[in-house]
Amino acid sequence: MCGIVGHFSAGPVNQQVYDSLLLLQHRGQDSTGIATAEGRTLHQAKKSGQVREAYRTRDMRELLGNIGLGHVRYATKGHATNLDEAQPFYVNAPYGIVLVHNGNLTNTRELTLEMRERDFRHLNSPSDTELLLNVLASSLQDSVGVRHLDADGIFDAVTQVISRIRGAYGTIALIAGHGLLAFRDPMGIRPLVLGRRDVAPETAEAAAGYRGVHGLPATLPESEWVVASESLVLEAGNYEVVRELAPGEAVFIDEAGTLHSRQCAEETRLVPCAFEYVYLARPDSVMNGISIYESRLRMGEKLAETIQREIPDEDFDIVMPIPDSARPAALQVAHSLGKEYREGFYKNRYVGRTFIMPGQAVRQKSVRQKLNAMRSEFEGKKVLIIDDSIVRGTTSRQIVEMAYQAGAVKVSFASAAPPVRYPHVYGINMPNAEELVAHGRTVEEIRDVLGSDHLVYLGVEDMAEAIMAGSDWDGLEMSCFTGDYVTGDVTEEYLEFVAGDQES
Amino acid sequence: MCGIVGHFSAGPVNQQVYDSLLLLQHRGQDSTGIATAEGRTLHQAKKSGQVREAYRTRDMRELLGNIGLGHVRYATKGHATNLDEAQPFYVNAPYGIVLVHNGNLTNTRELTLEMRERDFRHLNSPSDTELLLNVLASSLQDSVGVRHLDADGIFDAVTQVISRIRGAYGTIALIAGHGLLAFRDPMGIRPLVLGRRDVAPETAEAAAGYRGVHGLPATLPESEWVVASESLVLEAGNYEVVRELAPGEAVFIDEAGTLHSRQCAEETRLVPCAFEYVYLARPDSVMNGISIYESRLRMGEKLAETIQREIPDEDFDIVMPIPDSARPAALQVAHSLGKEYREGFYKNRYVGRTFIMPGQAVRQKSVRQKLNAMRSEFEGKKVLIIDDSIVRGTTSRQIVEMAYQAGAVKVSFASAAPPVRYPHVYGINMPNAEELVAHGRTVEEIRDVLGSDHLVYLGVEDMAEAIMAGSDWDGLEMSCFTGDYVTGDVTEEYLEFVAGDQES
Amino acid sequence: MCGIVGHFSAGPVNQQVYDSLLLLQHRGQDSTGIATAEGRTLHQAKKSGQVREAYRTRDMRELLGNIGLGHVRYATKGHATNLDEAQPFYVNAPYGIVLVHNGNLTNTRELTLEMRERDFRHLNSPSDTELLLNVLASSLQDSVGVRHLDADGIFDAVTQVISRIRGAYGTIALIAGHGLLAFRDPMGIRPLVLGRRDVAPETAEAAAGYRGVHGLPATLPESEWVVASESLVLEAGNYEVVRELAPGEAVFIDEAGTLHSRQCAEETRLVPCAFEYVYLARPDSVMNGISIYESRLRMGEKLAETIQREIPDEDFDIVMPIPDSARPAALQVAHSLGKEYREGFYKNRYVGRTFIMPGQAVRQKSVRQKLNAMRSEFEGKKVLIIDDSIVRGTTSRQIVEMAYQAGAVKVSFASAAPPVRYPHVYGINMPNAEELVAHGRTVEEIRDVLGSDHLVYLGVEDMAEAIMAGSDWDGLEMSCFTGDYVTGDVTEEYLEFVAGDQES
Amino acid sequence: MCGIVGHFSAGPVNQQVYDSLLLLQHRGQDSTGIATAEGRTLHQAKKSGQVREAYRTRDMRELLGNIGLGHVRYATKGHATNLDEAQPFYVNAPYGIVLVHNGNLTNTRELTLEMRERDFRHLNSPSDTELLLNVLASSLQDSVGVRHLDADGIFDAVTQVISRIRGAYGTIALIAGHGLLAFRDPMGIRPLVLGRRDVAPETAEAAAGYRGVHGLPATLPESEWVVASESLVLEAGNYEVVRELAPGEAVFIDEAGTLHSRQCAEETRLVPCAFEYVYLARPDSVMNGISIYESRLRMGEKLAETIQREIPDEDFDIVMPIPDSARPAALQVAHSLGKEYREGFYKNRYVGRTFIMPGQAVRQKSVRQKLNAMRSEFEGKKVLIIDDSIVRGTTSRQIVEMAYQAGAVKVSFASAAPPVRYPHVYGINMPNAEELVAHGRTVEEIRDVLGSDHLVYLGVEDMAEAIMAGSDWDGLEMSCFTGDYVTGDVTEEYLEFVAGDQES
Repeated sequence: MCGIVGHFSAGPVNQQVYDSLLLLQHRGQDSTGIATAEGRTLHQAKKSGQVREAYRTRDMRELLGNIGLGHVRYATKGHATNLDEAQPFYVNAPYGIVLVHNGNLTNTRELTLEMRERDFRHLNSPSDTELLLNVLASSLQDSVGVRHLDADGIFDAVTQVISRIRGAYGTIALIAGHGLLAFRDPMGIRPLVLGRRDVAPETAEAAAGYRGVHGLPATLPESEWVVASESLVLEAGNYEVVRELAPGEAVFIDEAGTLHSRQCAEETRLVPCAFEYVYLARPDSVMNGISIYESRLRMGEKLAETIQREIPDEDFDIVMPIPDSARPAALQVAHSLGKEYREGFYKNRYVGRTFIMPGQAVRQKSVRQKLNAMRSEFEGKKVLIIDDSIVRGTTSRQIVEMAYQAGAVKVSFASAAPPVRYPHVYGINMPNAEELVAHGRTVEEIRDVLGSDHLVYLGVEDMAEAIMAGSDWDGLEMSCFTGDYVTGDVTEEYLEFVAGDQES
Repeated sequence: MCGIVGHFSAGPVNQQVYDSLLLLQHRGQDSTGIATAEGRTLHQAKKSGQVREAYRTRDMRELLGNIGLGHVRYATKGHATNLDEAQPFYVNAPYGIVLVHNGNLTNTRELTLEMRERDFRHLNSPSDTELLLNVLASSLQDSVGVRHLDADGIFDAVTQVISRIRGAYGTIALIAGHGLLAFRDPMGIRPLVLGRRDVAPETAEAAAGYRGVHGLPATLPESEWVVASESLVLEAGNYEVVRELAPGEAVFIDEAGTLHSRQCAEETRLVPCAFEYVYLARPDSVMNGISIYESRLRMGEKLAETIQREIPDEDFDIVMPIPDSARPAALQVAHSLGKEYREGFYKNRYVGRTFIMPGQAVRQKSVRQKLNAMRSEFEGKKVLIIDDSIVRGTTSRQIVEMAYQAGAVKVSFASAAPPVRYPHVYGINMPNAEELVAHGRTVEEIRDVLGSDHLVYLGVEDMAEAIMAGSDWDGLEMSCFTGDYVTGDVTEEYLEFVAGDQES
Repeated sequence: MCGIVGHFSAGPVNQQVYDSLLLLQHRGQDSTGIATAEGRTLHQAKKSGQVREAYRTRDMRELLGNIGLGHVRYATKGHATNLDEAQPFYVNAPYGIVLVHNGNLTNTRELTLEMRERDFRHLNSPSDTELLLNVLASSLQDSVGVRHLDADGIFDAVTQVISRIRGAYGTIALIAGHGLLAFRDPMGIRPLVLGRRDVAPETAEAAAGYRGVHGLPATLPESEWVVASESLVLEAGNYEVVRELAPGEAVFIDEAGTLHSRQCAEETRLVPCAFEYVYLARPDSVMNGISIYESRLRMGEKLAETIQREIPDEDFDIVMPIPDSARPAALQVAHSLGKEYREGFYKNRYVGRTFIMPGQAVRQKSVRQKLNAMRSEFEGKKVLIIDDSIVRGTTSRQIVEMAYQAGAVKVSFASAAPPVRYPHVYGINMPNAEELVAHGRTVEEIRDVLGSDHLVYLGVEDMAEAIMAGSDWDGLEMSCFTGDYVTGDVTEEYLEFVAGDQES
Repeated sequence: MCGIVGHFSAGPVNQQVYDSLLLLQHRGQDSTGIATAEGRTLHQAKKSGQVREAYRTRDMRELLGNIGLGHVRYATKGHATNLDEAQPFYVNAPYGIVLVHNGNLTNTRELTLEMRERDFRHLNSPSDTELLLNVLASSLQDSVGVRHLDADGIFDAVTQVISRIRGAYGTIALIAGHGLLAFRDPMGIRPLVLGRRDVAPETAEAAAGYRGVHGLPATLPESEWVVASESLVLEAGNYEVVRELAPGEAVFIDEAGTLHSRQCAEETRLVPCAFEYVYLARPDSVMNGISIYESRLRMGEKLAETIQREIPDEDFDIVMPIPDSARPAALQVAHSLGKEYREGFYKNRYVGRTFIMPGQAVRQKSVRQKLNAMRSEFEGKKVLIIDDSIVRGTTSRQIVEMAYQAGAVKVSFASAAPPVRYPHVYGINMPNAEELVAHGRTVEEIRDVLGSDHLVYLGVEDMAEAIMAGSDWDGLEMSCFTGDYVTGDVTEEYLEFVAGDQES
């Protein structure tokens, strides 16, 4: 899981990228990177950990220039702190490009061979972002040849890139001395939204001064631009939403601040990822025209109907969310069913480390470090707990146990998403199929694992309806619930390859 | 504002103190300190920032021993990162003592002179904790003289300390080679709760090994003890609540693990601080026998009644909390009034820094960095916003403005606490009277400042009833609402002295 | 000024590169970098400051693999701590190459344009090392095309590189998945020496284990190789000296450990840089067949003859070196003239920083921070001070002043090198001509600047004879003394360009 | 081994203490500390490692005030990086005192008991400096009682301290709000020199400004003062030498800058430590009236006589020092014997770390990391190697081996000091007797251990004469050569106690 952002600014861009990354921090907290362009010169900082602690004044002082991009991410298993795999990535030929990417490519093995054997390009890590960047570099070299680079040449190259790569991606790149490029996969699985604002008169003078000192063109651009994973970044920065990038669309903002765009995919459909709505995106974002918060309320609405059918009314008195993401759904469930809504679980926001001292045993990680159950809210009560989804089931099982220990006489559990049964290959971190509690189990069997009195899942159709209500989409990417991969090219062999990689 | 904890453990205590501090992090995020005793040797680490980032493995490796205490705090104005003022403080004569303290002393000027002129003790900072520690040291020297130290001698000294100092305090101290001491002010303004658990059989062997290596007495104690600002620390560590310390009570756990206690104040009353219930304490704590969460629901209940009287029913459709602390009250208001409850404000949990670059202007701090208003929840609606309290009013004013900008057609504002009109001198960080929006203003005038259609405050009587419902307390410390300081010794001159200090 | 080293090892190479860099630390103390190859994967660390403080255990842990290179350097003016310009540099196309370089290119303007306009390669810094690396990458792309890479292809590319670049260079590069490459400029201005040793039987087992874990070919190589700026690196590591690279020669050690070599320049002469002998190299190195220490003794011998001619015998009683590099020459002068040798100057080895506090003025840097004159050695004496050379003259002037202040009644000064009158363009850091005290001044005028009673310089012929005694060289690069640049392509315009760059 | 310094300045003192510590760095490189007094407030920084790397701008920014002291030290075995034992130490009662100390106390066991049992003072480390500070604090409490503190009271306390402690010490202390105190042991074993300078008119204005901002008395003092371990500190700072402190003398500079002094010991003799002259002090220092450099030349003179008697003239052609401290003696030996002086050993000044990687064996430390032998200087030659002294013998043995390996046909070895046979208990780091190569061995037997053709030691009488020539001392502390401890109170039992402590 990743969050990405690109800024084209009149003056210094570093603080803007930093502020935007803070707003995307929920999309990834393991590492972060920022790159900026000061004319032809690129600057870059990659860090592990969260944005607030990662960057210091001296980093920001070196991130000069008016165009920039940034990245936050969750690491995949076993690679948590390896900065060699942290984004952005850089190639110096051709032109000097840095790139960030949210998503996942599914034909990495073929592309890696192609890069090595045909293009003699060096890939220093297993990262698919480094690969994507090299495919872009190689395509630029092919498309542009001896021409000088312009928007057309860039779009030709992106067209070639899109035809070569498979998977889901929102991508932002800085081309040194040229401008800011962004493009989105042809099914629009991963999000990317474009914003614009006028250069504020009160900052124009400072920006002009900055441009003079740093060798940037003297003419101030008319607009400042932003491209980001989520719309709340635009809202917080007072940008107007221009539009969400269309599936397969590329936009390029040149050094003068002029926006160019082209549809670079032959065939496109809009099939967004369901998990953004279920769990990943912030509730105050609007994505593909649909408010995350509203969609979660609607999932709650549908879930309430299912609960009414499946759990006897006398078996629960109060409805409780697992904070924070299940709160809207739970509120709606309580409201629809006329039950009392209470917050009996308190989320510990300050979770620390376990220090391994010489001669001391490793403590087992427990959900109790993250959640506390208030005895007064459980004692003698029949509770219905709502979570956004159930993945491994370990946490849910411990939550059920905590509820009983806190004195609940009956504990029911409801998931505001359907059972997760298949791997996610489009950029959401997810364990292998074997580790999914719903993989190969009936709901009854899962309930036995969790130990709750009742267990209710939202239905696949209900989820799709809840998320897509009022949209004009072509479909919903929900393969981890259905096993039906929308790009049509995810084979059994590939899934095994991915599983093996995860284990190593 | 501070959080404090002391642990007496069978084995190594460092991780326990660390874990407890994480649970108290909401009480102070500017600096933190831990001290431990390994027999006669004391170890100490003081850090700025939050617990998670503050301590590294090498710090923990040096914090050896089985008795320890810890501290988190908000800094007062202008002293944010000065580690010289960070707790714990240490004196080496007599005995070697480290001490932490939550609260505030009100006769610091007299005591400082006394320390310097009579006792020739050096105070290296303006901290009242360093002062309190030196009063304790001086009292121990006076009380014990040439005797060897035991619980009686210690309680004699605490009795002297309590007679010398004025104000509110929960205090924990480590006396090298002797044990862990805690005492509470004679009005119980600040909280302190005592917990106990058996030494778990599965850790006994490791603890015995540790004791051998670190020169601790071979005999394992029967109990492990904890003293903390809030009860959730006990719950998370599976300690049973022994009791909250009585006002004026001191407890001492000697090196063998035996608990001693004595009432050390001549006259005592239980008059807890209202602000713990209004804002500071975690909802899942029980303090002075009263659940924080329940008390907030009750404040919501009372607030609902006031709203019903003061705001026409047709002037608001939905009720919205300012997350997180106003949530319980808002839920209750919505419930009581039969209005829809919605969460239209999203709290940015990852707030970063503004880097001051050479030649760049300082940006104004804005509530928008901390809160985002979801347009879809406000557009065309009449909203009632609930906050836990209103202090400066700056934030409230910006929130009202945000709500209108997000499309609300009517905005009402309600505070789940009464108007804050006077300084707080018992350990809650608060601006000077002049900066309080309610200082010298009527509710009507405050409403004009905030710019809302309606403004409702919970009444003082209502708050007192809501908090104290079912309790056996002697009163409620709510001087910042009433100007009536319970210790009876807070003069105009003192308040001016404090104000001057804050400004410098 | 720089020191470089490359190692091909049977087992882990990181510590070997680190140890070698420590031995080359005198060649540059401002920044340092190490890169290693673990099969196809490259690892890299760049740091500011000295080697000992620069690298931490976690850096070394990441520098995996059995082939590595390293670098230390003095920064040119105004770029002291900019890690963006620190070596090694990396390009990922083609093949993945990291490169370090000791020397200076003189046709950087033409090459930079060529890289940008013809090859569309991005140069992110003004560093001529980044440029050299890109010329190599571009030449490899041209020479090898679609062939797979082998020693022949590499030597073809180096031949092209040597024909494209002008100046002086010792260069070492790592080609990912292929091996270690080194080559030297066609006049042998900068040094590079090749060493070899057997794989020690006692480390063979550990090396085999390491290779297994890190995916390296199982077969142990027969030899371990090193290429370095100075021979003492070989001596310290128990390598035998294979040979110094011939001017224009390239050597390549493939992944199996086989050495390949080819003469890649059309026309070559051996014309080493005089400044290595005068000042830069360590006395215990042998360079181009000539011992540095012996050459300095011979310079002392020749200097003694000049002194005898130019300074009346009664005008000095004792001979004193400026430590450390003038010591051999001074010893020889004293010995030859039958005068007493004394060490009246003590070198402060621990030179620190001047901290600029708010409101405090900047102190002037003084030679007194670096040298202390012992009064007892000067009081009432007539001293002859010997330094290795005189560049700006500022230090020499202060030294003369110190000697008088310490009580000397007569102070003569002798330089074991001729007057430095012209810029050095082949890799020795030197100020612009205007800042050289000897630029446009007679020896008499320089003496007036220094304020000494006598001033003697070694003659140009004498220096050349002293350095080259017993060698088979084709000449000596001593353009900074003569203005006669051996590469024949250093124009007035170029010198002005360089001067402008230095000033900016 | 330690170096200490105290400064009384008109303006900010931090940079002065820092600069002085750099000049004393040769006396200890493991840790360092600085404390300053800003009126009544003390500031302190303790660091591991060398001064240059230890302090950062933010440390200096906090070291406010015009009076300061500093410390560098070699750690004793096994305590290298424990900052808990780093100086300075601080006590807050009475008055607030920080103290540094060069030397060693020999009655620590008795004093420790006294502090604990009589004074109830806590000693948090085994450091004798913490102990000394507490004895001073306790004596001040005893002497001054209820009086206000002045120079007389302080000197009364120092008199008591000197009567209570045994051993060797140079001590500097800061008494908060009062001034700078220094005193020296009654036999003058460890050095301490007092310097004075006028307040430079060009800095007076800045100093006055600084004093205003930091609440210091407005009146500028007439003099600036320094107390330091070595005279070169005074020279470098342009201080005039007032005098070396007499044995048993205390000086106190009050806040106005007035110097007070008193003889505080009943019985005194001047018996300086020989090892300062043999090895520890910098050659450009003058100590107890004797120039270190001159004394080393005289030791060389005496050594030459012995060599002439003991080594056949034909058995060596050239004389070689082990750099740096043996250089003066070796020069004199060569000169006296009319032999050629050559520098065949090169000292590696940049010695780094050996990184322990998982699965790698620890390399043996070797003298080759520190010294390189130039083959050209040894090949076929008969060399006489001079070192300042021989302690463990391990290094000397390896040096002899290196000389043979480098081609020497005969290797003789001479020590410019007598055989080291006994522990040093007055502040020079030395191994236990068992580890001294000369302990229980004849010179012949030692020669066998070293493996040299000849071995010559300077005689005890010769050393004493060489060092004391022209002095008015009462004797020379040279117990490690003779076993005769000048303080007369070093028992067998004590030596065993020290040995045990060293081993643990």
